Amino acid sequence: MFHIGRLSTVDLEEEITPEEDIVRSRPKEIPHNEKLLSLKFESLDYDNSENQLFLEEERRMSHMGFRCLEITRWVICGLIGFLTGLIACMIDIAVEKLAGYKYLAVKQNIEKYTELGGLSISLILWAVLNSAFVMLGSLAVAFLEPIAAGSGIPQIKCFLNGVKIPRVVRLKTLVIKVFGVICSVAGGLAVGKEGPMIHSGAVVAAGVSQGRSTSLKKDFKIFEYFRRDTEKRDFVSAGAAAGVSAAFGAPVGGVLFSLEEGASFWNQLLTWRIFFASMVSTFTLNFFLSIYHGKPGQLSSPGLINFGRFDSDVSSVFIVFRGVLGALFNIINYWLTIFRIRYIHRPCLQVMEAMLVAAVTATVSFAMIYFSNDCQPLGQDNTEEYPLQLFCADGEYNSMATAFFNTPERSVRSLFHNPPGTYNPVTLGVFTLAYFALAVWTYGLTVSAGVFIPSLLIGAAWGRLFGILLSFIIWADPGKYALIGAAAQLGGIVRMTLSLTVILVEATGNVTYGFPIMLVLMTAKIVGDYFIEGLYDVHIKLQSVPFLHWDAPPTSHWLTAREVMSSPVTCFNRVEKVGRIVDVLSNTSTNHNVLIKSKTCLASSRLSQRKLQLKDFRDAYPRFPPIQSIHVSQDERECMMDLTEFMNPTPYTVPQETSLPRVFKLFRALGLRHLVVVDNENRVVGLVTRKDLARYHVGKDGLEELHLAQT
Amino acid sequence: MFHIGRLSTVDLEEEITPEEDIVRSRPKEIPHNEKLLSLKFESLDYDNSENQLFLEEERRMSHMGFRCLEITRWVICGLIGFLTGLIACMIDIAVEKLAGYKYLAVKQNIEKYTELGGLSISLILWAVLNSAFVMLGSLAVAFLEPIAAGSGIPQIKCFLNGVKIPRVVRLKTLVIKVFGVICSVAGGLAVGKEGPMIHSGAVVAAGVSQGRSTSLKKDFKIFEYFRRDTEKRDFVSAGAAAGVSAAFGAPVGGVLFSLEEGASFWNQLLTWRIFFASMVSTFTLNFFLSIYHGKPGQLSSPGLINFGRFDSDVSSVFIVFRGVLGALFNIINYWLTIFRIRYIHRPCLQVMEAMLVAAVTATVSFAMIYFSNDCQPLGQDNTEEYPLQLFCADGEYNSMATAFFNTPERSVRSLFHNPPGTYNPVTLGVFTLAYFALAVWTYGLTVSAGVFIPSLLIGAAWGRLFGILLSFIIWADPGKYALIGAAAQLGGIVRMTLSLTVILVEATGNVTYGFPIMLVLMTAKIVGDYFIEGLYDVHIKLQSVPFLHWDAPPTSHWLTAREVMSSPVTCFNRVEKVGRIVDVLSNTSTNHNVLIKSKTCLASSRLSQRKLQLKDFRDAYPRFPPIQSIHVSQDERECMMDLTEFMNPTPYTVPQETSLPRVFKLFRALGLRHLVVVDNENRVVGLVTRKDLARYHVGKDGLEELHLAQT
Repeated sequence: MFHIGRLSTVDLEEEITPEEDIVRSRPKEIPHNEKLLSLKFESLDYDNSENQLFLEEERRMSHMGFRCLEITRWVICGLIGFLTGLIACMIDIAVEKLAGYKYLAVKQNIEKYTELGGLSISLILWAVLNSAFVMLGSLAVAFLEPIAAGSGIPQIKCFLNGVKIPRVVRLKTLVIKVFGVICSVAGGLAVGKEGPMIHSGAVVAAGVSQGRSTSLKKDFKIFEYFRRDTEKRDFVSAGAAAGVSAAFGAPVGGVLFSLEEGASFWNQLLTWRIFFASMVSTFTLNFFLSIYHGKPGQLSSPGLINFGRFDSDVSSVFIVFRGVLGALFNIINYWLTIFRIRYIHRPCLQVMEAMLVAAVTATVSFAMIYFSNDCQPLGQDNTEEYPLQLFCADGEYNSMATAFFNTPERSVRSLFHNPPGTYNPVTLGVFTLAYFALAVWTYGLTVSAGVFIPSLLIGAAWGRLFGILLSFIIWADPGKYALIGAAAQLGGIVRMTLSLTVILVEATGNVTYGFPIMLVLMTAKIVGDYFIEGLYDVHIKLQSVPFLHWDAPPTSHWLTAREVMSSPVTCFNRVEKVGRIVDVLSNTSTNHNVLIKSKTCLASSRLSQRKLQLKDFRDAYPRFPPIQSIHVSQDERECMMDLTEFMNPTPYTVPQETSLPRVFKLFRALGLRHLVVVDNENRVVGLVTRKDLARYHVGKDGLEELHLAQT
Repeated sequence: MFHIGRLSTVDLEEEITPEEDIVRSRPKEIPHNEKLLSLKFESLDYDNSENQLFLEEERRMSHMGFRCLEITRWVICGLIGFLTGLIACMIDIAVEKLAGYKYLAVKQNIEKYTELGGLSISLILWAVLNSAFVMLGSLAVAFLEPIAAGSGIPQIKCFLNGVKIPRVVRLKTLVIKVFGVICSVAGGLAVGKEGPMIHSGAVVAAGVSQGRSTSLKKDFKIFEYFRRDTEKRDFVSAGAAAGVSAAFGAPVGGVLFSLEEGASFWNQLLTWRIFFASMVSTFTLNFFLSIYHGKPGQLSSPGLINFGRFDSDVSSVFIVFRGVLGALFNIINYWLTIFRIRYIHRPCLQVMEAMLVAAVTATVSFAMIYFSNDCQPLGQDNTEEYPLQLFCADGEYNSMATAFFNTPERSVRSLFHNPPGTYNPVTLGVFTLAYFALAVWTYGLTVSAGVFIPSLLIGAAWGRLFGILLSFIIWADPGKYALIGAAAQLGGIVRMTLSLTVILVEATGNVTYGFPIMLVLMTAKIVGDYFIEGLYDVHIKLQSVPFLHWDAPPTSHWLTAREVMSSPVTCFNRVEKVGRIVDVLSNTSTNHNVLIKSKTCLASSRLSQRKLQLKDFRDAYPRFPPIQSIHVSQDERECMMDLTEFMNPTPYTVPQETSLPRVFKLFRALGLRHLVVVDNENRVVGLVTRKDLARYHVGKDGLEELHLAQT
């Protein structure tokens, strides 16, 4: 029997925990947004519920059966890698094509009007083209699938952390995301396609591993064993890694990204599978791109952003940059996001803002190119894709145009590799400021877009600027300072550590840059953390997601399970009257935190009179029907129902005197969804859930507690 | 009150678990060695025992205090990296010098007698020099510190896994290890210095982080907070990573190695610190080596084995080799090790075997060089360090001598990079066979020596051989096949996965080799696992170490905590008579599994009448005095002692119906030392320890259970 609070007496043989069903009483006032934890986010359960059905199935399975499962997992990972690589390839080609057409049209127009003297027409053409692309993408995102906005990395972080973000791994999200990112990059916004690619990988993984699509209402009846949070999480890790791997040509970096963001428990085989998916993804991408570029089999330029090879003389770049600019980016974007949350929440407003940004981006770019008189001789090898002559002499081109009249990836590469003297310092300085402002404004728009490439571009610009200035004093290769600057800026914004180092090292293709890049990222993180959190964490916090960090706050040893738990707990008997179950579920579902799993069983077992199988749960996973959708007659209400098979007879428990860090460690390491708190006689006195733990964090004055809100 | 078995009644308020004190009754027969689990290995406790003393200290500490601790951790990691790099540098220089003198002497002697015709004198000189070096190293290892034998990687694996291997991280072990490895490599054995370097890094970490050396009886009174298993493990991970990083110039590979072998719970900050230690280590090594080589600041050749740069055309090497040869190596070595365990356990026999192997190695090498008539023209650039002319024409040298008359690192490099046509296939074939036999025989000798380099060398030789044969049919670059062969052989022997891929990629300095190397390692592992486990695992098993793998055997859902636990449990009351404590501890210490911690407290609290501090535990850590060393008078026996402060009031518990995989997951993920099994009324019914879990493994016919033995 279960207990309500401490009232009931004991029959511990029958202690059950089918699902968490708690009625809470919390303060209702809604203070400042980021001081809240939203109750609308459910938790995923990364601990297998070892109920009778599950155990029976596991026990029936032979050793060979487990081996087959293992092989299936490998096959799925291969598929995930393949499909992710394919999607990345598709995005890349589409963006290249569209942007190519756009720049060609504008270039021809500019060339035409440079002589005639009606360049404002070119400006309008450019702005209209940009806005049109962006409008398409923004419309799709704002009206069809708002979750596809942004880079998707914060959402994947949350998913891997164990937070259920609705609709984040659906097929529809994937389609909108891919369409959106093509539009926004082709539309010339200050965005990259890397974040969305990571998100795409995750969606692919979630879809493939479940062997069905709920968006398409198509069930292939395969991979049914993997239809639970634990297995799905592992595959989503692999998908995210494959996405990183495709985006940066960094398979190891991809694995480390997944681990850094998600894994709580490292498992050799799992990691190896994730790495496999990453490798397949890079390979697929390279293979198809090499075919597309007409050089099949030439696989030596992996990844979409390939920084090009750096040679190995690094002894002169030991200057450590700071993360101040990165922090500044985050702070401005933070205020902007708060402004957006307050005032721009209607979809049409959002689309209009996105179009405005696109037009402004075109205008700023145009103005910069127009007013800069920085002419450079056209190289022999003609590496510029779209050299703009404008008012330069014949055989020369406008160097500001290399930075603005190009996709950001190419601009980064030219900042890294163009020989010293290509850029004039004033040009670079103005470019940095302008692009910084545009990128800050752009991130958070209702378009699907990543922040990696703009960050790299800003960093590369001021790094190169610094290198040029330094070269007036001592000899210095500005391209290397551009690399270091890019690392510092990106590190200052996203605050990733090991994985980012490896990604950058893999993208440069030179292992010896590891040490300076690491030092730079470390400084950027330390300096940046002093001011504000990383950009992704800022956005996660602004959405009031109950995100669990690595450890409990160090000064939280004062708190015990008794203080953090939710109580009283609503309990069912092992055999319970249907009426009571329906009542409790209906009641708490208006509140929160109710899984209708048990109700599903109830319904089908009542109606069809057959024994419920694990299969029934799997078919319903992950969207169980709400209690209100099931009609229960008065007759049925009087029946008794046996919950024994569905309860987990051996949940993890802690005594109520356990300190918060200890509770936290158990909860986080095992990826639990709820942890039962018991008293000395093993009676249930409360439940600890994700929100109870995520509430506590270290603020300026020590330990702070967030409020919980319904929104 | 604690319970003996299920006899006693309940007062759960006072349930305590100061330490595990179990009397077991197990079968005494000793079957075949590897079917045993030894009881002599204690477990480390990677879960902080949250007793009253600990909690009081944590609660006293301010937020600033925790921040200072964090900074200290970084400083220590920096120190670990620095010292590890320094030691690696020292080993490298010493080996180069000694081997250089030896080869010069032998070369001059050979040149002298080639004309005179008394080459047997050269052979004897070579054999005697080799044996002398090896004798020194072997004497030190066999008589002073037997734990310093071998590569040290199995021991570090065990330590990170949570097994307490006595004396493995002592200063004395480090000294003998370093001395031993210099002697064995200089003595021309088929060994590498990489494994010992990893071990050295771990010892450095264990020493530095504790702020004292028990070997030197010197306590610096610093870093006292870190004197417990949890913190020490983290630092030892960093040390091992620094060792890998120094050995291979692979900082990321080092981190992955530590994680793959040790970490159960991934923590971003911890990983970042480990990476820092790795980076510092590589950097230190390169810095000092560059000074030694007279080119200070030239840091572009990281690591001790630098494979040299490979260019990027990999599309032609997609041939997947097998792990069969690796498995063969392990099988032969397995039988050899069993033979050694049975018959060669006296130190002088061990020294003699080592000397014999050294002499045989010299003889075989000499015979190979002598009988091969494979002359090659001396190149312009003269890359050979010790070109042997022997019977070749002037301006030519004996190509077999490049393989044998050289340190193995150099041989590997020449196999990778020498242009096609350098080696004759027959030479290579004979070399492969001879070196294979020597390497198998050598691993497991009582010398300190690693298996990485010999494996790479064997693999490179047959890989190149394969490449040469293939080039008769299609064009192929034999150097690349050498690389792939080396990866396959090493992977087949050690069965590491992600970390090995990254190490090899970092050592080649070319990211694009990742995919073929991964495929090769994957195949090598799958094929190899079919025959036998990895070499390190074989040796761990032969030592009957209770090693916990990643997961419980998949078919073990049948077993529950009730069946695997040890019972009955001996318990103490919260306030207990001293006499009883002494009796119980004395009695069980003749058995096993007794920590004398509690006794230490008892003794000092009785004698000095002062309150015990956490400091007392820390001063005694990790070697607590045995119960027999403390005299307790009859008077004292009658006193009562309050154990409240030392017990952990909130241990992790599981109900007795919990399935084995669930118990295993909790135990492994949290790095526990013992897990309390309770019944429904929360009474202690048993304890699950490492040995209870390690007993079960998957054999040929499904789940097997190992026996426990006292040895």
